[in-house]
Amino acid sequence: MRRSEHRGAVLTIDLDAIAANYRFLVDRLKGKACAAVVKANAYGLGVERVAPTLAAAGAEIFCVAHLDEAIALRAILPDVEIIVLSGPIAGAEADYARHRLVPTLNHLGDLAAWRKFAAVQRGCRAALHLDTGMARLGLSAREVELIAEEPRLLEGVTVSWILSHLACADEPDHPLNRQQLETLRAMLARLPCRAPVSLANSSGIMLGAEYHFDLARAGAALFGVNPVPRQPNPMRPVVRLQAPILQLRDVDRTTTVGYGAPQTIEPPAKLATVGVGYADGYLRSSSPRAHGVVGDVLVPIVGRVSMDLAVFDVSRAPLHAVQPGCMIDMIGPRYTIDDLATAAGTIGYEVLTSLGSRYRRSYVGGAAAPA
Amino acid sequence: MRRSEHRGAVLTIDLDAIAANYRFLVDRLKGKACAAVVKANAYGLGVERVAPTLAAAGAEIFCVAHLDEAIALRAILPDVEIIVLSGPIAGAEADYARHRLVPTLNHLGDLAAWRKFAAVQRGCRAALHLDTGMARLGLSAREVELIAEEPRLLEGVTVSWILSHLACADEPDHPLNRQQLETLRAMLARLPCRAPVSLANSSGIMLGAEYHFDLARAGAALFGVNPVPRQPNPMRPVVRLQAPILQLRDVDRTTTVGYGAPQTIEPPAKLATVGVGYADGYLRSSSPRAHGVVGDVLVPIVGRVSMDLAVFDVSRAPLHAVQPGCMIDMIGPRYTIDDLATAAGTIGYEVLTSLGSRYRRSYVGGAAAPA
Repeated sequence: MRRSEHRGAVLTIDLDAIAANYRFLVDRLKGKACAAVVKANAYGLGVERVAPTLAAAGAEIFCVAHLDEAIALRAILPDVEIIVLSGPIAGAEADYARHRLVPTLNHLGDLAAWRKFAAVQRGCRAALHLDTGMARLGLSAREVELIAEEPRLLEGVTVSWILSHLACADEPDHPLNRQQLETLRAMLARLPCRAPVSLANSSGIMLGAEYHFDLARAGAALFGVNPVPRQPNPMRPVVRLQAPILQLRDVDRTTTVGYGAPQTIEPPAKLATVGVGYADGYLRSSSPRAHGVVGDVLVPIVGRVSMDLAVFDVSRAPLHAVQPGCMIDMIGPRYTIDDLATAAGTIGYEVLTSLGSRYRRSYVGGAAAPA
Repeated sequence: MRRSEHRGAVLTIDLDAIAANYRFLVDRLKGKACAAVVKANAYGLGVERVAPTLAAAGAEIFCVAHLDEAIALRAILPDVEIIVLSGPIAGAEADYARHRLVPTLNHLGDLAAWRKFAAVQRGCRAALHLDTGMARLGLSAREVELIAEEPRLLEGVTVSWILSHLACADEPDHPLNRQQLETLRAMLARLPCRAPVSLANSSGIMLGAEYHFDLARAGAALFGVNPVPRQPNPMRPVVRLQAPILQLRDVDRTTTVGYGAPQTIEPPAKLATVGVGYADGYLRSSSPRAHGVVGDVLVPIVGRVSMDLAVFDVSRAPLHAVQPGCMIDMIGPRYTIDDLATAAGTIGYEVLTSLGSRYRRSYVGGAAAPA
């Protein structure tokens, strides 16, 4: 389905803010490299526009989750380093070579498959992923030990990067951070290969220099999510979601709103309905705690967010700003991705990646659109 | 970004089941008409394949939420009736006429705009939406009264349908159902125009004949969501989501899994990681209550669902079925959309519309793909 031209809701993406956020993180890294993570269509914001913006801001290394994402990114950026965070898919090894992609070897099975491929296709590079405490993907301590005892397991494999991933980087005091750091150092000491090491994600960058190693991997913070949740957000906001009022309703008697009639509104009150719902990625769990903004006034969601619609209580908003067609800010500088995430009981990452395809998307600043 | 060819996760959509579900609901309606609701890209399942399937099963009337969706549907089905549930967008009235679309007039402002347009473009049809208890979109009792007192407000407007919408149809004993029925009858008695009337959505069809009026509008139940949540689901399952195991991990000492380390796993245990996460619409709130299915064994999610990955505890699954590359059913006949929705604290509708674009989609049965 093509993108909306007629419908009112607008998602504005500030590419200059993404570039500024990249440079902010680079500054924090004091000369260490910073990869840009653009998996999941650049966290939902559109990799075709976001990736060139980051390249123009200086990013030379990019990470994606899947092979398809990497092939699409290669078509956009012919010359950058692209690390694919999932392992090489059996039978698709040649695609990595053809598109000059670096797969991540997550377990001995991945390593064996890549060793076999590298025997035919010499010089193919790969990243090794060490699991230091996520228990998700990556070589375990036992597997690292096996490699240490039998270095032939790496034979013919050009290890270009050694990766690991922090589980609790957004909680600076969590003991797992230091534990992962120590586990990583111990594993590196045992590995019979040397390569630049990467541990920190966005929040990891903020943990300080000992977490930086040779390369950080910044994702969410580039797109405005707060990497230090207990402190003021140092990142520039990137996303604004605005929806026009489709209908206003003066409540003149006690009424319920929406599916399941979960909430009762007492008169006098004024309700505004907008055409954004959970099919647009405005999570259903946002109700009943989320707010919109009219002028500078926070207006609460009432009732349940439905598939295509949400209703706000705009009783306290200035009258001139609540007319049909007036815009309600659903995400913006005054009510951020993180605010909405908190209301929905989730994290900014999910708010971002859920943003739907029915909005009109408007890009501000940044690198030019591809031809 | 183009759809995955390389990645393992597969979303299978059973078009024959959609057709069977449509016919099941038509049978319940005993001769009353049944519109097919295919808004939000047919609830995320792909309107290009779903709409022709429903047309082949006999649907002649379709509903969508937005003008863009209607224009896209018109290109797929040149001859059906298409009702757009949101109001006519100012300045886009001619698009409705050009594509033979029926806008829904939700308030007196919509009515005024359409009256003005109809004065120029004679014979344009519209639907009137009466709000009987959703307080979301639709004419209020007061607005209906104004029209009753001043029938000129409808002058030149060809009202083809009169719509209203149930708030609690999935709770048969909720008093609002009968209240909405009575409010609708009272409003119809006051309206100075006659047209076929539509009230029931999928669950409304199951409430019985007095809710059927002239036209029902079936959406979620077509796609397998249970329209009678307290009873066994009479609909055929439509969606199956399967993801291959990327990595297996034998837990040989107490370990935490995933972001925030929310959960501790005691040995011995076997964990399986799959490449599906909340960026694929597998809601983050699914953890920690959701399950997958291996063979016929339910396997629980452990840790937090992350952007691109989820981890299952497969300790109890048969060993032959938990090898790298083996499939875990994340949605299917044994663990349904409704089961996953319950685990995530939401409804099947949101599970459906969230289904992401990174899966390989496989359609089974149904009408042929458009050329």
